[in-house]
Amino acid sequence: MPRIAVVGAAGFGGALCAAIVERHPSLELVAVTARSDAGLRLDQIYPRHRVRLELEPFDADRVADRADAALVAYPHGAAAPVVAQLRERGLKVVDLSADFRLERVRYEATYGPHAAPTLLGASVYGLPEIGYREAIRQAGLVAGPGCYATAALLALWPLRELAADAIVDAKSGVSGAGREATGTTHFVSVAENVNAYKVEGHRHRSELEQELAGAGFPITFTPHLLPIDQGLLASCYVSPVRELSAADVRQLFLDAYAGEPFVELAEAPPGVRDVRETNLCRVHATVEPATGRVLVFAAIDNLWKGAASQAVQDLNLMLGLPEAEGLGAIAASAAAPAPVSAARTEEVPS
Amino acid sequence: MPRIAVVGAAGFGGALCAAIVERHPSLELVAVTARSDAGLRLDQIYPRHRVRLELEPFDADRVADRADAALVAYPHGAAAPVVAQLRERGLKVVDLSADFRLERVRYEATYGPHAAPTLLGASVYGLPEIGYREAIRQAGLVAGPGCYATAALLALWPLRELAADAIVDAKSGVSGAGREATGTTHFVSVAENVNAYKVEGHRHRSELEQELAGAGFPITFTPHLLPIDQGLLASCYVSPVRELSAADVRQLFLDAYAGEPFVELAEAPPGVRDVRETNLCRVHATVEPATGRVLVFAAIDNLWKGAASQAVQDLNLMLGLPEAEGLGAIAASAAAPAPVSAARTEEVPS
Amino acid sequence: MPRIAVVGAAGFGGALCAAIVERHPSLELVAVTARSDAGLRLDQIYPRHRVRLELEPFDADRVADRADAALVAYPHGAAAPVVAQLRERGLKVVDLSADFRLERVRYEATYGPHAAPTLLGASVYGLPEIGYREAIRQAGLVAGPGCYATAALLALWPLRELAADAIVDAKSGVSGAGREATGTTHFVSVAENVNAYKVEGHRHRSELEQELAGAGFPITFTPHLLPIDQGLLASCYVSPVRELSAADVRQLFLDAYAGEPFVELAEAPPGVRDVRETNLCRVHATVEPATGRVLVFAAIDNLWKGAASQAVQDLNLMLGLPEAEGLGAIAASAAAPAPVSAARTEEVPS
Amino acid sequence: MPRIAVVGAAGFGGALCAAIVERHPSLELVAVTARSDAGLRLDQIYPRHRVRLELEPFDADRVADRADAALVAYPHGAAAPVVAQLRERGLKVVDLSADFRLERVRYEATYGPHAAPTLLGASVYGLPEIGYREAIRQAGLVAGPGCYATAALLALWPLRELAADAIVDAKSGVSGAGREATGTTHFVSVAENVNAYKVEGHRHRSELEQELAGAGFPITFTPHLLPIDQGLLASCYVSPVRELSAADVRQLFLDAYAGEPFVELAEAPPGVRDVRETNLCRVHATVEPATGRVLVFAAIDNLWKGAASQAVQDLNLMLGLPEAEGLGAIAASAAAPAPVSAARTEEVPS
Repeated sequence: MPRIAVVGAAGFGGALCAAIVERHPSLELVAVTARSDAGLRLDQIYPRHRVRLELEPFDADRVADRADAALVAYPHGAAAPVVAQLRERGLKVVDLSADFRLERVRYEATYGPHAAPTLLGASVYGLPEIGYREAIRQAGLVAGPGCYATAALLALWPLRELAADAIVDAKSGVSGAGREATGTTHFVSVAENVNAYKVEGHRHRSELEQELAGAGFPITFTPHLLPIDQGLLASCYVSPVRELSAADVRQLFLDAYAGEPFVELAEAPPGVRDVRETNLCRVHATVEPATGRVLVFAAIDNLWKGAASQAVQDLNLMLGLPEAEGLGAIAASAAAPAPVSAARTEEVPS
Repeated sequence: MPRIAVVGAAGFGGALCAAIVERHPSLELVAVTARSDAGLRLDQIYPRHRVRLELEPFDADRVADRADAALVAYPHGAAAPVVAQLRERGLKVVDLSADFRLERVRYEATYGPHAAPTLLGASVYGLPEIGYREAIRQAGLVAGPGCYATAALLALWPLRELAADAIVDAKSGVSGAGREATGTTHFVSVAENVNAYKVEGHRHRSELEQELAGAGFPITFTPHLLPIDQGLLASCYVSPVRELSAADVRQLFLDAYAGEPFVELAEAPPGVRDVRETNLCRVHATVEPATGRVLVFAAIDNLWKGAASQAVQDLNLMLGLPEAEGLGAIAASAAAPAPVSAARTEEVPS
Repeated sequence: MPRIAVVGAAGFGGALCAAIVERHPSLELVAVTARSDAGLRLDQIYPRHRVRLELEPFDADRVADRADAALVAYPHGAAAPVVAQLRERGLKVVDLSADFRLERVRYEATYGPHAAPTLLGASVYGLPEIGYREAIRQAGLVAGPGCYATAALLALWPLRELAADAIVDAKSGVSGAGREATGTTHFVSVAENVNAYKVEGHRHRSELEQELAGAGFPITFTPHLLPIDQGLLASCYVSPVRELSAADVRQLFLDAYAGEPFVELAEAPPGVRDVRETNLCRVHATVEPATGRVLVFAAIDNLWKGAASQAVQDLNLMLGLPEAEGLGAIAASAAAPAPVSAARTEEVPS
Repeated sequence: MPRIAVVGAAGFGGALCAAIVERHPSLELVAVTARSDAGLRLDQIYPRHRVRLELEPFDADRVADRADAALVAYPHGAAAPVVAQLRERGLKVVDLSADFRLERVRYEATYGPHAAPTLLGASVYGLPEIGYREAIRQAGLVAGPGCYATAALLALWPLRELAADAIVDAKSGVSGAGREATGTTHFVSVAENVNAYKVEGHRHRSELEQELAGAGFPITFTPHLLPIDQGLLASCYVSPVRELSAADVRQLFLDAYAGEPFVELAEAPPGVRDVRETNLCRVHATVEPATGRVLVFAAIDNLWKGAASQAVQDLNLMLGLPEAEGLGAIAASAAAPAPVSAARTEEVPS
């Protein structure tokens, strides 16, 4: 059974990686490392994950001695050197940071100099559903997509050849901001509040531009912070290059995602609760009758499909395991989308 | 001192009208009526408003005997006949429903047959900041704008001659759905959730189209429900007909709202907490560098500026009182917009 | 593989029963019934459970044709006749209502006349950890304990012979109030609020009195409603009949719960997040130095250990399956309690 | 008009002091100081308070030049030296920290050495409703009570001669933990959670013991942290020394609080929403029929009556102003308590 280390397991994403790996029937969790909480058992920080391993300081050799592959959950910039050390020692790696998501020019324009540029060319973007599945299977290094990018790309992918422009109004829960205590993550800043932020350029825009580059349409991307813990909704507004009916749009999504285990097509706008603690992206696509604009709503759990469980989905592929193993709920067949949720058809603010 | 009745005071909007009127230094609250809670004192239903009047069944004659003006907070359809009775008896009326907001053709296309069509022509749209101030002063009947329309119109008004299209992604707290207990307003449906609804056509679109009609650009409008009580954010995306800089946009808003007591221009995206329990609309407008698209974020309290306090603002004008009297916080001068909130510049989901 | 029906699967508790049974490796979910939503598929009401069975009207014969056992999640009073029909047809039953929890005299004093009194004597109280495990294994009918009673009894059980009195200040999330939309469950009533209710006598007191009857000490029980979805905390204050040290108390709990798979002893007060969506009860017991009073804090998920997953735990026992099968997280050994959560040692309102 | 400085205005309590003083019709806000945010305007940190003064570093002489009195909102320990400097310069002071609440022996046992012990004897405990009103009028230095102590003392005061013991199970919103960003105040730690903390001795116990000292009964005090912003509920359980009926208890509270402007007696358990952003303490007292135990529930807004507005209430008294001036809502007469809230009589978790 492949032996897995989680590097950076004290943060929200890394801790969840450890929890998912530990429960995974075909993976063995052998080590968890942390930069500042070494010596604590992981369940002292996260009782609910019930992972009783002790956090150890990162040492590439000690990790390589025990593990066949690693999930790395460091902040961007800090991840690249660690990934490089693990790759040198032959471990397969899924990196959850931004460090290996972008081409070098794009990375450096967005984040500054890259610490391991030679590895950039070898990394594969870890979103299997938009054409990377086979490349991920062959990869030694996979870059887990950003949480916002995951939802937005799954929403826009089927429309990429038909869009004149796209606006992504994205809303995330606070866990996306990470475990660090700041003014922004203080309960009193968030409760009973909602606001946009980084409206003049969030770094996840780079991922959207890169992955939809062939299409060449302009993308507006605005993140908002919501008073919820886990959950991310991307509301996307696309002007089509030619008139599309709601049925046309529905068919585009069926064609794109038929058989995808983790994309669930819904007949009404999804709520983030519908996908909480799953690896699913639940999507509803339609057309606004008054304007002909295509509307797509994609909901994920930002810590799961937006980070940790998607990394394990990638790891399953890299290790030759069934893609959905150990990841819980599977989408209903794309050919038989879930019907309108009765709970959501009543009228609200009128 | 003008004597005021609140008709339909058992709902969220009407109850707040009563509370604001009762604390108003130049108005006297003389009656509160309700359809189903008559006999209860208002503070039995809403302890926090501390209005100790007893709710009485509606009787137009009894109201007219005591009151000079009325705020009517009935559901659409139910409001029109009541308003007609009060107008016949000479009372000035601000109606909070949709019944007098739209031209007849537009109303009937959206809501069905109108119960008092002859009054439609005499009503004034109650948003003083978009050119209706003088008409409101002269009016006997004012239609309080919808909560979504209030925020969206204040966001789009300065851009009305420069917009090629507009997308309004609006997010509202649950109080906007009213006091009725439904599956939608159940705590368990809302907590840790967010979803779009009525994506194929919310009725507030009609108000946007009507009020921005001269402009003739297409408007996409999508409401979302958030796990907050009071608060509404309209995130607006406008393609300008000619290139605009952020400074251009800022100037347009300064020009439009200089001296407005209840529009507060901010240098960073507003949070709905910033305007909670005020009559303010806090607005930030800028340009996305990557696309040139104009972004406008307008935050209100849906029950205040989106309903009750705006109705009292209208009433102040109708009665010749100072527009801002009894309404609490006033915007900083539009010429000296509030600077960036330090609390909101830290980085969030990255 | 035993075939299971869930009767009353449209409510929160019943729907979760269905979800747990469907994922259970040794049980087969064969039918879900509902009183008012028959004809809908269960995932139309609860997308996140992803149970695609169609709700059918209850028919005892049709259920008995297909199922070996049933979980019944009807309101009290409505459950008894349904349970009687299923027992007549030979099905093993776990009933989640109050109908079979109490001796007849106590039931009728609390709830009124009983619809199936002859069955009362045959039912077993479904809390394995307080001495009922063997009886549950032999039972044809088990009464799932109330959510409040589950947490309070697990907190008080080890102290039953040493208590002079006990005060239970209990706090529950809103899901405990059920799916019905009422003024109480309206988001706007609950958000940013907390209040006690039924302070002059909640019906779960009867369960506490009955199960701790031998002890004969007076029990004060006060429930509170919190702005959370799932989670219940019982804070218990016990005057001991003789002086006890914190170490004494700790030992009492270790003795009582050593080896229990679903009682987790913690060295700091538990949060309800620590047990969210698990069958665990996490308990911390200590002594207040200034007064010598024993303090016990017991956290559960009210829908899981307080209702649905505990019912499946009972069902596992009744069917001869491993007690913990299909129920997810298991407590760390009672002999090695989880240490203080670092996340909870910082100072709060000072 | 008395000129007021707020020292330590960048924290939650100090900022609210500034906002209340600025709106106060008989006080003039002349200075706001801060330790680490000097140079910012207060509305840059707290847009919603709309106080446009610039925060300045603290300088006792500069404050004394301009102000007649000060509200000091520093952390305990840091407050005493600042208060001493202001008192030396002749300013009247209300201190919101713990530094002047306790007798010296009790202070030093709880907090360590005191920095200005000679001032301790001259300070008055700032809870007018429990017998300190006249002393506050004469005082040069008043110590604002702790938030928990305020609610608990108002709940227990009328019972002080009839209690054999008392248990205070208190629940606070997160704002009580202050503006500092910590693991405890991180949104993700708090949302969908509740837990007790400091169960072996919170420092507010000292205030309870001191103020109820004559009574000599043991007091158990346990704070809990709730996922709300502002609000504090003290649920109190008192064993009476002699049998009391609910009517007896009601009369005790009427006698104790008749005419009190800020204690509101209610006929049902209060919710913290009922007092949000008011200086009110809303109290319900009754007897549990099954045990004869007296139950008292006291709700306040921890930042208002638990800190800032109570400090202004004290200041009003010290300056000879009407006690309730500038403080908003007033309690209904204690002789005519507000009736049962209809919104809270429905049944919840059963």
